[in-house]
Amino acid sequence: MTEAVEQGQERTRLAWIAGVGASAGLGAALARRFAREGFSVAVTGRSRERLDVIVEEIRRAGGHAVALPGDVTREADLTEIARQLADTGTLEVAIFNAAGATRAPTLELSAEQFEAAWRVTTLGGFLFARAALQPLLAAGRGSLLFTGATASLRGRPPFAAFASAKAGLRSLTQSLAREFGPKNIHVAHVVVDGGIDGERLRTSSPQRVAERGEDGLLNPADIADAYWYLHRQARSAWSQEIDLRPFNESF
Amino acid sequence: MTEAVEQGQERTRLAWIAGVGASAGLGAALARRFAREGFSVAVTGRSRERLDVIVEEIRRAGGHAVALPGDVTREADLTEIARQLADTGTLEVAIFNAAGATRAPTLELSAEQFEAAWRVTTLGGFLFARAALQPLLAAGRGSLLFTGATASLRGRPPFAAFASAKAGLRSLTQSLAREFGPKNIHVAHVVVDGGIDGERLRTSSPQRVAERGEDGLLNPADIADAYWYLHRQARSAWSQEIDLRPFNESF
Amino acid sequence: MTEAVEQGQERTRLAWIAGVGASAGLGAALARRFAREGFSVAVTGRSRERLDVIVEEIRRAGGHAVALPGDVTREADLTEIARQLADTGTLEVAIFNAAGATRAPTLELSAEQFEAAWRVTTLGGFLFARAALQPLLAAGRGSLLFTGATASLRGRPPFAAFASAKAGLRSLTQSLAREFGPKNIHVAHVVVDGGIDGERLRTSSPQRVAERGEDGLLNPADIADAYWYLHRQARSAWSQEIDLRPFNESF
Amino acid sequence: MTEAVEQGQERTRLAWIAGVGASAGLGAALARRFAREGFSVAVTGRSRERLDVIVEEIRRAGGHAVALPGDVTREADLTEIARQLADTGTLEVAIFNAAGATRAPTLELSAEQFEAAWRVTTLGGFLFARAALQPLLAAGRGSLLFTGATASLRGRPPFAAFASAKAGLRSLTQSLAREFGPKNIHVAHVVVDGGIDGERLRTSSPQRVAERGEDGLLNPADIADAYWYLHRQARSAWSQEIDLRPFNESF
Repeated sequence: MTEAVEQGQERTRLAWIAGVGASAGLGAALARRFAREGFSVAVTGRSRERLDVIVEEIRRAGGHAVALPGDVTREADLTEIARQLADTGTLEVAIFNAAGATRAPTLELSAEQFEAAWRVTTLGGFLFARAALQPLLAAGRGSLLFTGATASLRGRPPFAAFASAKAGLRSLTQSLAREFGPKNIHVAHVVVDGGIDGERLRTSSPQRVAERGEDGLLNPADIADAYWYLHRQARSAWSQEIDLRPFNESF
Repeated sequence: MTEAVEQGQERTRLAWIAGVGASAGLGAALARRFAREGFSVAVTGRSRERLDVIVEEIRRAGGHAVALPGDVTREADLTEIARQLADTGTLEVAIFNAAGATRAPTLELSAEQFEAAWRVTTLGGFLFARAALQPLLAAGRGSLLFTGATASLRGRPPFAAFASAKAGLRSLTQSLAREFGPKNIHVAHVVVDGGIDGERLRTSSPQRVAERGEDGLLNPADIADAYWYLHRQARSAWSQEIDLRPFNESF
Repeated sequence: MTEAVEQGQERTRLAWIAGVGASAGLGAALARRFAREGFSVAVTGRSRERLDVIVEEIRRAGGHAVALPGDVTREADLTEIARQLADTGTLEVAIFNAAGATRAPTLELSAEQFEAAWRVTTLGGFLFARAALQPLLAAGRGSLLFTGATASLRGRPPFAAFASAKAGLRSLTQSLAREFGPKNIHVAHVVVDGGIDGERLRTSSPQRVAERGEDGLLNPADIADAYWYLHRQARSAWSQEIDLRPFNESF
Repeated sequence: MTEAVEQGQERTRLAWIAGVGASAGLGAALARRFAREGFSVAVTGRSRERLDVIVEEIRRAGGHAVALPGDVTREADLTEIARQLADTGTLEVAIFNAAGATRAPTLELSAEQFEAAWRVTTLGGFLFARAALQPLLAAGRGSLLFTGATASLRGRPPFAAFASAKAGLRSLTQSLAREFGPKNIHVAHVVVDGGIDGERLRTSSPQRVAERGEDGLLNPADIADAYWYLHRQARSAWSQEIDLRPFNESF
C-alpha cells in the first residue's frame, strides 16, 4: 500500500472491501468502482492469488489498491487489517460482501455446514462491522455496507442454512443502522435479488445464463453502482435497504 | 412548452411530474433536478399559480419546463396532458408525487375523508400510471416512479385513511413493476420515512423543525437525488423500492 | 331476529358477519361456526336469497340467525343494520369478509373497475368498522376481524386492483388494532393464502380443485376455526395477524 | 418416563418441549398445557432441578411428564433424548422455546457473546428440528413449533446479537415449513411481541410489571394456548406465523 501515502495535508481516502474473490465477482467489481472514484482500495479475501489479480488490474488502470488477505471469521485477521489501514489513510467506506452458501435438503445438512454458513455470513459481518466501526467512528463519518440476497428476506429449501445466516446478517445491519446512524455512520443493506452474472453462475449454470438473455442476470458493475450511490447519499436522506434485480426477473 | 421543440434529429426528452405544489416541496425539487439533468420537465398540480412559480424558476436557471395543471383524480385531465406531452417529445420519466393526507381519530373520520385520501393517493397513482405507461411503452423504455411514506408500510392512528391509501399505492407499484419491468419500464417506489424539510412542516411545526437539527429532516433535493439515481440504474440491477430517512431518525 | 330476544337477565350475544354469499363460501362457514358456539348470528350480504338459505340452515340446526341484507359500500345500510342489532342484543364479534376481486392486465383495467374493487374491499371495511365499533366500544369489549388474502401482502398482475384494495384494508386493520386494542377491542386480520374450497373455485376451476388433492384447498370451516380462535384469545396475548394456507401450498 | 408406557394398542402421544426453565416461564406453561390435553410431556432444559419442579407439578395434577435434561447446542444430547422418546411413545408435538438473550451496545458485545446467542437460539433450533423431524416424519404427521420475539422481525440496539439470532431462527422455520409442510409436518413460528409475565421480568423489572397493569404483559398460559391452537389446526388451513401481544401494547 505504498501508493496510499498522504499527499500534502489530505489523508488518503480508503475503501475496505471484504469478501473479494473471483475477478468476475461482485467483490472485484466493488473494488474497481471505488478505485475509479479515487479511493485507495483495500481488498480482503481468503485467497491472496485472487486478490493480487484484482489489485494488479486496478493498478494497471491507474488506481490504488492493496491486497490484505484474511478470513472474516477470524477476529484477529480483521483487527490486524484495520490496524494496517489506520496507518495509511482514513477509512471512509467499508463493505462486507462475504457469504457462505450451502445447498442441501435440511435433513442432509450437518451441524457443521449450518454453522459454517453462519460463521462466514453473519459472524463475519459482525466481526467486520466491529473492526470497521472503530476507524469510521474516529473519522466521524463514513459508510458501512452489506451485501444481502433474496434469501435474506425469506427462508426456502434447499437454502435453509444460507437463508438463516443471511437473515441474521440483515437483522444485524438494522441494529447497526439504528445505533450508528445518529453517529454519522451510514449502514445499509443491498438485497441482490437474482443471479449475478459472475464466475460462479457462468461455471455452474451456463444454460441458465444463456436463457436469461441480455441484462437478465445482475451485472456486478451495475450492482457496484448501488453501493457507490449509497455512499454518496446526503445524510438527510439515507437508505437502509435497497433491492436490486434484473428488469425481467420474476419476483 | 414552446421551448421543448426538437433540436435536430433528437426528440426532446421529457420528465412528467405530478403532485407538484409548493416551491419548497418535493415535487418542485424533482422538477428542478430533472431539469438540471437536461430534461424538459412537465409539472402537474392543481394550482397553476404554484406551477408557474416553479416553471419560471427553472427557466431562469436555463432549464426547460412547462406547467400542465390538472387533477390526478380526473382521468380526462391526465389523458389530455399525456396527449400534449406526446406532441412535444419523448416521455422518459414519469413521477407520481401526489398524496392526500388526513389526520383524525378513526371514528371522527368521515367516509368522504377516507375516500378523498384514496382518490388522490391511490386512484391518482393508478390513473397517472395508465396515462404515463402508454407513451413509455411506445418509447420502449423509461421510468415510472412513486413517492411513498412511512405510512406506506404500516397503519397507525391518526393516519388510518392516509396509511390505507399509501399501502394501496405501494401494492399497485409492485403489480406494475412485475407487469411492466419485463417490458423495459422501471417501476419503483420511494419510501420517504421521516419529515420533509418543506413548506408544510416549516409552517405547521416550526418547533419540530428546529429540534431535529441540521439534516434531521429530509431535504427535498436529497430525496430528488434518489429518483434521479433510480432513473439512471442499469436494467440488469433495478430497485423496486428504496427507503430514505435522516441519519438521526428513530425508526 | 325474533329468536334473539333476551333470556332472563343475560342479553343475547351477537356475531355480525358481512360479506356472506354462497352457502359453500367462507361467510357462510363463519356464520355456522359462531352459531354453533351459541351466538345469534346476523348475516349481511347483497343477496337476500343467499342469506336466507344460510339462515334457514342454521335455524334447522337449532341455531339463531337473521338475514340483514345490505351493501357494505353504503354507510346508511350498515348504520341501519347496526341499529337493528342494538335492539336485539350485545354485539361481541364483527367480521368483515367482503371483497371485490377483479382480474385484468393493468392497462385493460378501467378506472371504474379499480374503484369498484376498492369500494367493496377497503371502503366497505372502513364503513363496517365504524358501524361495528360503536356497539363494541359501548359493550366495552369484543372482536373485529377481517379477511385478507395472499394479495394483501403483495401486488401482482393480473390482480393490481384487488391487491391494492386488499393492501389498503390490511393497513386499515393495523391502524384499528393500534387505536382500539387499548380500548379492549381485538382487531385482527386473517391472511387466507391459497384457494378456498368453495363455490367460486369449484365452478371456475374444477380441474385445479381436483389437482390440489385432499386438503389442498382451504376448507371454509377450517378457516372459520381461526376466527373463532381469535375471538377466544385472552387479551394478554392477542394476535393482530395470522396466515392460513393448505399444508401442501407452495409459498 | 415410566408412566408413559403404552396402554393397550394405542401408543403414548408425546409432546417434547425444549427450552424449559423457570416454573413461571413459557416453557413450563407449554408443558402444563400439553399435559392437560393428555400428552405425555418431555421437558428439556439445562437444569434438572428446574425440570423436576415442573414434572412434579404436572404429575401431582394427574398428568404425565418426564425430565430429559440436555443442552440444545449439543447435537448428541438431542439425539439421545429423541432416542429415549422413541422408546416410550409417538412424538406428535415438538416445541423449541430456547433462546439466548444478550443486551449490550454493539461495540461492547464480544464475538463470544454474539456466538453464544446464536448457538442457543438458532443452532439450537436447527439441531432440535433435526432431532424432532425424524420421529415426526416417521409418524407421518405432527407439529414443530418455535418461539419467536419482537426481535425476530427487526434488529435494534442493544439487542443486535439476540435479534440477529432470532431472525436466523425465523428464517429457518420458513425453510422448514416449505420443506416439511407437504410431508404433513406443521411448522410454525410464534412471535411473542411484548414482555412475558414470568420470573425473568418480575425479578429484573418489577416496576415495569406494575406499570403495565392487568393483562398488560403476556401471560405464559395465554401464549401456550396459541401453541395448542396451532397444533389442532386442520391441515387445509395451517398458519406459518402468528403474533401475540397484550391488548394495550404499543407496536
